[in-house]
Amino acid sequence: MKILNEAMEAIKSPDMEMHARALERLANQARPAGSLGVLEPLSARLAAIKGCMDVRLDRKVIVTCAGDHGVVAEGVSLFPQEVTAQMVYNFVNGGASISVLARHAGAEVRVADLGVNADFDADLPIFHKKVAKGTRNFAKEPAMTRDQAVASIEAGIDIVDALVKDKGLDMLGTGDMGIGNTTPSSAIIAAFSGIPVENLTGRGTGIGDDALRNKIRVIEEALALHQPDPADALDVLSKVGGFEIGGLAGLVIGAAKHGIPVVCDGLISTAGALVACELVPSAKQYLFVSHKSVEAGHAYMHDRLKLSPILDLGLRLGEGTGAALAMEILDASTRVLSEIKTFEEVGIHNAN
Amino acid sequence: MKILNEAMEAIKSPDMEMHARALERLANQARPAGSLGVLEPLSARLAAIKGCMDVRLDRKVIVTCAGDHGVVAEGVSLFPQEVTAQMVYNFVNGGASISVLARHAGAEVRVADLGVNADFDADLPIFHKKVAKGTRNFAKEPAMTRDQAVASIEAGIDIVDALVKDKGLDMLGTGDMGIGNTTPSSAIIAAFSGIPVENLTGRGTGIGDDALRNKIRVIEEALALHQPDPADALDVLSKVGGFEIGGLAGLVIGAAKHGIPVVCDGLISTAGALVACELVPSAKQYLFVSHKSVEAGHAYMHDRLKLSPILDLGLRLGEGTGAALAMEILDASTRVLSEIKTFEEVGIHNAN
Repeated sequence: MKILNEAMEAIKSPDMEMHARALERLANQARPAGSLGVLEPLSARLAAIKGCMDVRLDRKVIVTCAGDHGVVAEGVSLFPQEVTAQMVYNFVNGGASISVLARHAGAEVRVADLGVNADFDADLPIFHKKVAKGTRNFAKEPAMTRDQAVASIEAGIDIVDALVKDKGLDMLGTGDMGIGNTTPSSAIIAAFSGIPVENLTGRGTGIGDDALRNKIRVIEEALALHQPDPADALDVLSKVGGFEIGGLAGLVIGAAKHGIPVVCDGLISTAGALVACELVPSAKQYLFVSHKSVEAGHAYMHDRLKLSPILDLGLRLGEGTGAALAMEILDASTRVLSEIKTFEEVGIHNAN
Repeated sequence: MKILNEAMEAIKSPDMEMHARALERLANQARPAGSLGVLEPLSARLAAIKGCMDVRLDRKVIVTCAGDHGVVAEGVSLFPQEVTAQMVYNFVNGGASISVLARHAGAEVRVADLGVNADFDADLPIFHKKVAKGTRNFAKEPAMTRDQAVASIEAGIDIVDALVKDKGLDMLGTGDMGIGNTTPSSAIIAAFSGIPVENLTGRGTGIGDDALRNKIRVIEEALALHQPDPADALDVLSKVGGFEIGGLAGLVIGAAKHGIPVVCDGLISTAGALVACELVPSAKQYLFVSHKSVEAGHAYMHDRLKLSPILDLGLRLGEGTGAALAMEILDASTRVLSEIKTFEEVGIHNAN
């Protein structure tokens, strides 16, 4: 718990005086007040986080955390577990969806193995942070021990430390890969919220009606069996979570520790962010939510986090794809704040 | 009418065989089918328009059409008319909102004077296409003659011709500037749809309750006075439109003539696009709508055009700002289609 405790203590609040100055500048720009919608509050939050008006998000990294899930034995996913490891190679080779969209956003993709059920060569250029080769089947036993839950979160914090130390980091994005991982994500949301599982559970990669009913039943029975304590995020993560979800939580906490804005992706990344913010509420000050997934349950987390998703493009892929697209909007918002001239600067009378 | 008629006759259909091939490739990419949401159909439309799978939107231009409106005499806007000309200079100097967001999107901004109530030096680097120094006050008389309506549309077509001839053009964005121009835009929507004016009319730059009631009354009375014929787009444009709105319609028709994708901005640009598509329905095949404005009435046009807005960021600025942001998503969609590997290419079994 040392790494986690130290990170929790290191989190500072963003500069709220800078936030106020940013809002004032936005209101005085030569355009109707508020006319750039959500770009305005986003740019002000980034200014407060970075402590300056001219925020530059030059070094952007998306960390895609991969892990496997014992619960796939219950038939909750359309794809076989082997695909998790195959996709890790696809990410590394640059042909995956996140590779393409991160490149477009000017971000680097780094893959982290938190718990893939495969042996990767030590030379493979990924973060090697395997806690175990897949979680246990939480339909029958807790997904992981409490120590493993802490280890997965601390691995995420370690990764941010390493990125900062390596080449510096201006913005972090989070993404996931793990066959079956919408199941633990929906279970986590249900555990924290008490909302009926059937209202929170979607089709993941595209399962049919029967498989969806089975998935709901598996989650309901697991929650009844393990009774995760919603006031104890580590209990929720260990009983019905996943290693990559712990890693995703750690990324959010690590970014907050270093004062770096972090944008989470879809259902699984947001479940990780939710675990982070339930455990360390101050981390939320650095968190942005990229998009509204079509997965049921995603919207609930945005409500609970009191953060509005930036995009609504009908995505349901994960990997960090939504985070990559949202980074382009966040980047644009920094230009809005610093580059649009004020009425005074251009000599036009302000009607507002 | 010669330029307009020639453009109408020159419009070809996009390559629907390429569209089918694009959809097939998207369905075979190593990710769940449909998981990239709206990026998928957008990329397929662009492939069909460009006639290739690897679409490159290298040369992007946003044309911001400016014009003044006699109807401002009725007190429909918060800002004085002089601001239209002042903003033209602000665009040219690169400090305006559209200057900043277009730069971020890798697009060039070109300003076009369709009818600003000011004399610009002939050396000012804008398209000099002034039809007249502002429309007439349509509360009392038609905004323009039918010949002027045609002239404003043909000016827009001319601009696209010039851009294509100059350095080539891969994607066009449209934007507007004109104090008072949400009033003719709302009038145009009401004229085409028959929907009550009060349901279609918003606060523009931010007018209060009394001014909003006045704006609604002005539009209602103008429609009652002029009785524009919804089956005759030139009648609607000439009676309650604006010169920049005609120019914006011409840009859409001109882009379609050259087989170039065109993305329209907010309320006013979409009103121009609607005039274009009512007049020349085949132009719609090349049209993309960038975002959902907070202005009442905007959503109606998307319904009528049967096109879904790409973004919903709470924008209500115009100038082409939403078009610039949407260009980044459209650009990303082209990378999705061409760069994400298929299951076969990466050697993963497709579960779909």
